[in-house]
Amino acid sequence: MRTYDIIKKKRDGEKLSQSEIQFIVDAYVKGSVPDYQMSAFLMAIFLKGMADDETFHLTTAMLESGEQISLSEISGFTIDKHSTGGVGDKTSLVLGPVLAALGLKVAKLSGRGLGHTGGTIDKLESISGFSCDVPADKFIAIVNKIGVAIAGQTANLVPADKKMYALRDVTATVDSIPLIAASIMSKKLAIHNKGVVLDVKVGSGAFMKSLQDARELARLMVSIGRQAGRKVTAVLSNMDEPLGEMIGNSLEVLEAADTLQGKGPSDLAELVKVLASESLLLSTNRTITQAEASKKVEEVISSGKAFQKFIEMVKAQGGDPAMEKLPISKEIKPLVSEKSGYVSSIDCEEVGLSAMMLGAGRETKEAKIDFTVGMKLCKHVGDKVEKGDKIADIYVNPNHPGNEKAIERLAKAFHIKAEFVQPQKLVLDIVS
Amino acid sequence: MRTYDIIKKKRDGEKLSQSEIQFIVDAYVKGSVPDYQMSAFLMAIFLKGMADDETFHLTTAMLESGEQISLSEISGFTIDKHSTGGVGDKTSLVLGPVLAALGLKVAKLSGRGLGHTGGTIDKLESISGFSCDVPADKFIAIVNKIGVAIAGQTANLVPADKKMYALRDVTATVDSIPLIAASIMSKKLAIHNKGVVLDVKVGSGAFMKSLQDARELARLMVSIGRQAGRKVTAVLSNMDEPLGEMIGNSLEVLEAADTLQGKGPSDLAELVKVLASESLLLSTNRTITQAEASKKVEEVISSGKAFQKFIEMVKAQGGDPAMEKLPISKEIKPLVSEKSGYVSSIDCEEVGLSAMMLGAGRETKEAKIDFTVGMKLCKHVGDKVEKGDKIADIYVNPNHPGNEKAIERLAKAFHIKAEFVQPQKLVLDIVS
Repeated sequence: MRTYDIIKKKRDGEKLSQSEIQFIVDAYVKGSVPDYQMSAFLMAIFLKGMADDETFHLTTAMLESGEQISLSEISGFTIDKHSTGGVGDKTSLVLGPVLAALGLKVAKLSGRGLGHTGGTIDKLESISGFSCDVPADKFIAIVNKIGVAIAGQTANLVPADKKMYALRDVTATVDSIPLIAASIMSKKLAIHNKGVVLDVKVGSGAFMKSLQDARELARLMVSIGRQAGRKVTAVLSNMDEPLGEMIGNSLEVLEAADTLQGKGPSDLAELVKVLASESLLLSTNRTITQAEASKKVEEVISSGKAFQKFIEMVKAQGGDPAMEKLPISKEIKPLVSEKSGYVSSIDCEEVGLSAMMLGAGRETKEAKIDFTVGMKLCKHVGDKVEKGDKIADIYVNPNHPGNEKAIERLAKAFHIKAEFVQPQKLVLDIVS
Repeated sequence: MRTYDIIKKKRDGEKLSQSEIQFIVDAYVKGSVPDYQMSAFLMAIFLKGMADDETFHLTTAMLESGEQISLSEISGFTIDKHSTGGVGDKTSLVLGPVLAALGLKVAKLSGRGLGHTGGTIDKLESISGFSCDVPADKFIAIVNKIGVAIAGQTANLVPADKKMYALRDVTATVDSIPLIAASIMSKKLAIHNKGVVLDVKVGSGAFMKSLQDARELARLMVSIGRQAGRKVTAVLSNMDEPLGEMIGNSLEVLEAADTLQGKGPSDLAELVKVLASESLLLSTNRTITQAEASKKVEEVISSGKAFQKFIEMVKAQGGDPAMEKLPISKEIKPLVSEKSGYVSSIDCEEVGLSAMMLGAGRETKEAKIDFTVGMKLCKHVGDKVEKGDKIADIYVNPNHPGNEKAIERLAKAFHIKAEFVQPQKLVLDIVS
């Protein structure tokens, strides 16, 4: 088998066999296929596409390139959630405890990575004492006992994806539905959860700009997961503006805690309810109805059981559960609207960059996150604003350079139009 | 300007500006654009194509990546011929002296390279004493005096093409008409001849398998040359079987000398006549007719003037013009047909590989060519053969291993069918 022939075959729009896909992925990870052949191959996939079974074989080949985590020591229905990413997305912080309260098992392994704000782990580590450096046996014990734990991911999962993604990132081959699906699903399948619920974001602030593309990505990922023997559902949710009101590390933890107590923003609450209901449907093999599942979710929140799980998890991982001790800046600068009208959209990318400029995220691997900073968005798409109305509170570190520029950036992220704009529904579709 | 954006633009089928093309080619040659970005870019060009002006800008950017040779010290109409390659193609050896006899100036710079048989230089160096290591001033002096000289090319012409071609070769991006046109034309334009006549081969033994593709390549190359201010014509010639009868180094020199004396194979003689006539038409700005040009070509051959130029060139470059002294093996093995019928095609690739296995070509840069070996094809497409008829004479070095395999290979290259096959015309079209 020759790499050249595999590239040529895909270039000509032909279908690759499982062994051809396996060959090129293995050889690339081992280093015997150089980057320049892989990048030509990825561009050919980008432009010629892949059939569903080719994408499944690609996912499998990538998945098998590294370690896998069996979770076999956890009793019960293990489930993982994946979001295709967005600004202000603290859903995992809320969903984990809710699912634990419902009796499911959430053994969340998360990375730090770069970004506008920290990852789930960074957010949690803004809680005094909280540690995600949990040894494997203790991690399993917490999940078995409480139902949820969140740890840093240290295993060498899917090295093929790391290497391929780095290459795609610099060769304009990221936005390909088969490549995105294989990248996400190889990482999800490497951890042997019984169920996976996918939150596919759609809209101006998401990877997938159109509902049609998002639906296709969701369909493909669900099909890959099924072929691999997992239970999978995908929820398509709108990302035309940040989710919730808070952006920043401690601020997002606070908002998550509020939501777990039924006092969070309605969009976040709704998304958690849908994702949790879908998870419950997966775990019960759909022997209950959607309405029943939804009711159970509402119950664990209104009863305080879900918030209790959060507190238990925080304690088990060494954190101080007193939310009032969260490190949140006292220096709050209001941002006011410069014109009157209706909020038509809030540019997620710009909001995220503004948060990063305040110090809430990492621009480089070595950068230190400032847990105390961030922002609360006071207006949402569809809201009426008058000139001079406050549209955001900005939590700053007064000693940080670049606050002014960050605030200017945030101001520009709000698009205000004269005519009323009907906000999109939050949950656009469910693919299962 | 970012490489990423340039790749993305081409990936999306958009038209690149001159400055974008210039940027990526320059940066690639300098090493600041890595191979993996260039290979993704080349695959995007392969699959999305290029408009004529983009291809012209690509050619120019490549051309300007290295040295150029002005030829300003040569008086008269300087002309170069380029063939897209084929087996048994000794046209340059014949055409150069013919053009010199017509009063044109042929300052041929040629490479050695790898291949089934040696390049033009290797073929000529099979003449005892002949050297292509001619200092620049002597080379110019010979061209000015005799009208033709052939030297090894040592200048660093078009490094962009060397680097890009090596990459295309391993990433399945060779067979792209814009990329082929830019590669050929950048090398041709780097040497400032006034005229260029292109011999675009078509058929099973050529790069271009279909007449339509060959015509498109020819049209594009002629247009690039014109935009660069040169006079250019392209001749489309059939390559469903090797050109002429001889394959091998000394054997091809012998056939070239025969053809210069009007006793060569008809296909080679015809192609030389067409290429020479077209060259004359370019040099005279078409102030004479095609028939007049053709007549002048016939005259320089029948008068012996063209052969005389060949002898003068050989002498000027230190060679012994006595053709009977050419090193040709006396060990000749006949190849006979195993069946009766009509020759339907002769696989050029297989004939070439057979010649290489006999020792006539270089498999690696370091390999030494055996000038004495090769073959004479005794049957051509359309010829009737009986079982047992001789179809080729094979000139071998009896001490060379692998002769048997080479002969087997040649036997398989002859395709013989029961029904008569009408051979293709040699000259299929002229694009000017």
